[in-house]
Amino acid sequence: MKLALQGENFLTNNDVRQLDRSYVFHSWSAQGNLNPLVIAGAKGCQLWDYDGKNYLDFSSQLVNVNIGYQHPKVLAAMKAQLEELVTIAPATANLARGEAAKRIVELAPAGFHKVFFTNAGADANENAIRMARLYTGRDKVLSAYRSYHGNTGSAIAATGDWRRVPNEYSRGHVHFFNPYLYRSEFNATNEQEECARALQHLRRIIECEGPASIAAILLESIPGTAGILVPPAGYMKGVRALADEFGIVLILDEVMAGFGRTGRWFAFEHDDVVPDLITFAKGVNAGYVPAGGVLISEAISHYFDDHFFAGGLTYSGHPLAMAAIVATLDAMKEENVVENAAQVGDGVLRAGLNALSEKYALVGEVRGVGVFQALELVTNPETKTPVAAADMAAIKLALTEAGLLSFVVENRIHVVPPCTVTADEVKQGLAIIDRVLGQFSGLVR
Amino acid sequence: MKLALQGENFLTNNDVRQLDRSYVFHSWSAQGNLNPLVIAGAKGCQLWDYDGKNYLDFSSQLVNVNIGYQHPKVLAAMKAQLEELVTIAPATANLARGEAAKRIVELAPAGFHKVFFTNAGADANENAIRMARLYTGRDKVLSAYRSYHGNTGSAIAATGDWRRVPNEYSRGHVHFFNPYLYRSEFNATNEQEECARALQHLRRIIECEGPASIAAILLESIPGTAGILVPPAGYMKGVRALADEFGIVLILDEVMAGFGRTGRWFAFEHDDVVPDLITFAKGVNAGYVPAGGVLISEAISHYFDDHFFAGGLTYSGHPLAMAAIVATLDAMKEENVVENAAQVGDGVLRAGLNALSEKYALVGEVRGVGVFQALELVTNPETKTPVAAADMAAIKLALTEAGLLSFVVENRIHVVPPCTVTADEVKQGLAIIDRVLGQFSGLVR
Repeated sequence: MKLALQGENFLTNNDVRQLDRSYVFHSWSAQGNLNPLVIAGAKGCQLWDYDGKNYLDFSSQLVNVNIGYQHPKVLAAMKAQLEELVTIAPATANLARGEAAKRIVELAPAGFHKVFFTNAGADANENAIRMARLYTGRDKVLSAYRSYHGNTGSAIAATGDWRRVPNEYSRGHVHFFNPYLYRSEFNATNEQEECARALQHLRRIIECEGPASIAAILLESIPGTAGILVPPAGYMKGVRALADEFGIVLILDEVMAGFGRTGRWFAFEHDDVVPDLITFAKGVNAGYVPAGGVLISEAISHYFDDHFFAGGLTYSGHPLAMAAIVATLDAMKEENVVENAAQVGDGVLRAGLNALSEKYALVGEVRGVGVFQALELVTNPETKTPVAAADMAAIKLALTEAGLLSFVVENRIHVVPPCTVTADEVKQGLAIIDRVLGQFSGLVR
Repeated sequence: MKLALQGENFLTNNDVRQLDRSYVFHSWSAQGNLNPLVIAGAKGCQLWDYDGKNYLDFSSQLVNVNIGYQHPKVLAAMKAQLEELVTIAPATANLARGEAAKRIVELAPAGFHKVFFTNAGADANENAIRMARLYTGRDKVLSAYRSYHGNTGSAIAATGDWRRVPNEYSRGHVHFFNPYLYRSEFNATNEQEECARALQHLRRIIECEGPASIAAILLESIPGTAGILVPPAGYMKGVRALADEFGIVLILDEVMAGFGRTGRWFAFEHDDVVPDLITFAKGVNAGYVPAGGVLISEAISHYFDDHFFAGGLTYSGHPLAMAAIVATLDAMKEENVVENAAQVGDGVLRAGLNALSEKYALVGEVRGVGVFQALELVTNPETKTPVAAADMAAIKLALTEAGLLSFVVENRIHVVPPCTVTADEVKQGLAIIDRVLGQFSGLVR
């Protein structure tokens, strides 16, 4: 078997899959029976393999390709930066880095000051937690059970979901229940009740843990992998008020929800709150080069003017990643990508998902905003029994075979196409989901 | 002030520095009085700024630009990958990822099997620790006081140096003293004694911590930032034997020492040992795109065939980073870059450093191998009193002003040019160090 990196057309999916299975160790898996999807190329919201099969993307990979695949302006800027200076250490002053930081600060609410760049979302959260601990002199971090914050030491300990449990080696992490009316932890029957009870619960956790020990509340503005749990009106303001009352730093994790995904630059804009630290990655440059960071408010930024910041990394503010950020943000503005996410997402996409919910008892709930939507699948609408894992795997496979890349988590289909998705593409994707849900409608008992 | 990303020549250092100071938050610093060096471009081992000043690089930035700046073959491969497919999720099979993993496995000793890719060295170490814990069912990690392993949760807790202390939130980390004859922790007077005593110390730590609780020994093959502490002959074999005796996973951190730095592909080759896990980053693609990873031995890799690996990240095996790895490793082979590091490093560079040590009492010790060398500066050769921080800062500034980029840590000048450095460039750099040491020779009292 001969393989070549490019320019030769005799490669098959099987060649590439065999190479992968021989040498590549995969994330979050047992390695024995993996059968990874092969992708050869992509453009916009479309992908294809080596055997001639095409896919429409309703996943944005890991909800990161917000601007779509192979955006020509971003690629051109990256090529220019490649030619100019591909890498330089973070201790230097670099033009692309300064330009990227300036653009991100200018997108943030008033009162934000500087950006600390990282390689991804996990180390963005790590460093935001570090800043909060150093700034407050306290050490506990409160975060939600329904959350994901990354795979490294503190980030995975802050994570709420089951992936935390085999990785719980960091001290100082306490978890609380965040609002989720469809499966309320608080026996609430409406949004207002869920909001009030979730806030009272958080207040009690703060009181019982000891407010003076709590450095930060870390919360996804809209918990993503946990289920696209749009908080009820007033919840985020309530969290902000609790943070203020007890002198706690509020860190909002915008890694998945930020940079257009919800039809706004930041998801917290829907709630009219302003955090103290914002963590980001993914959409900021669509993952064209690994990058993340922490957007820092003035108070915390100035604290570190004369206090040592005890964190850092070799690739902080990597020029190529920075050039991709500059070009991504500029193109998103020029092409109204964020507005498109709002219009198409809250329009034709949400209407279509609502229609599927009307049509199939299998759809227990539709949730979301912009191109950040989820279908929660249940075998019984009354008991809300989740569709079993094996059936969800079969649904995902059926979607893939029908040419739709999906983001399936537990009993949910997260409907998260690139922010550049067109109304026509949305209709194509919805038609596939419609057909597949039809095939599986017998799961409702 | 108008700024542009490229193609315009009116930028000055001051423009770029002001932009940086307005918006960019820096690693491992108080932010108030930073005066970052400005770099406009680079080629090979040479860099320049916007005001016409040139630099020779004896730092490889953060000891990562092993192949030198702007290597044409690596840039060309990155452009080709950009055109083909710039990003794709880790769950897919990707050609560049498979090719990169294959090349890395083929460089490793027999018995290595697969590669798990990360974004950098810190999360490489995090994931190696995670594998060791899951594989052994134990949780303690032993690492050296004289070490640096990265800035995230477990990696910074495993780190030995002072940067650990404000970040010590992870449990299960125990530190031991590694060999360093020049400042022996064991009152040893020769290499053999240092080796034997350091191994006996490590055995006692293992016994007292309880062997059955220890998942891993994590050790830089040659501790880098800690001082380029080449282990005495026999030490690494002794550590391997202790790991075997007690069923402990041996993780060797090759993030800084690997991929040509010491004149070998891996630094542990000098010691004729084989670890169970190898962590890498930096030199594997010279930092052209952020990337790191874990090279996994057969036993551990096969364990995860039917056991869930509880770790993962969005940019694992990022195609652009992978294309840079493939091209970097291929170019290093084609151009004998590793051989060059050995010849030039152990030849003209080391001879020149030895000559400086003869000439200046300020040089307490010369250590290293290949292009991984250090000068330890002392104000008194008998008491080995380290040159004070303020004087080291002045030395670094003098080197920079004379046109030499240096990597200064504590009282040491780490002499770590790209592995492509020529004998002529080494002579130029040595001449600058000679001149600056001459200026500061009065520090010896």
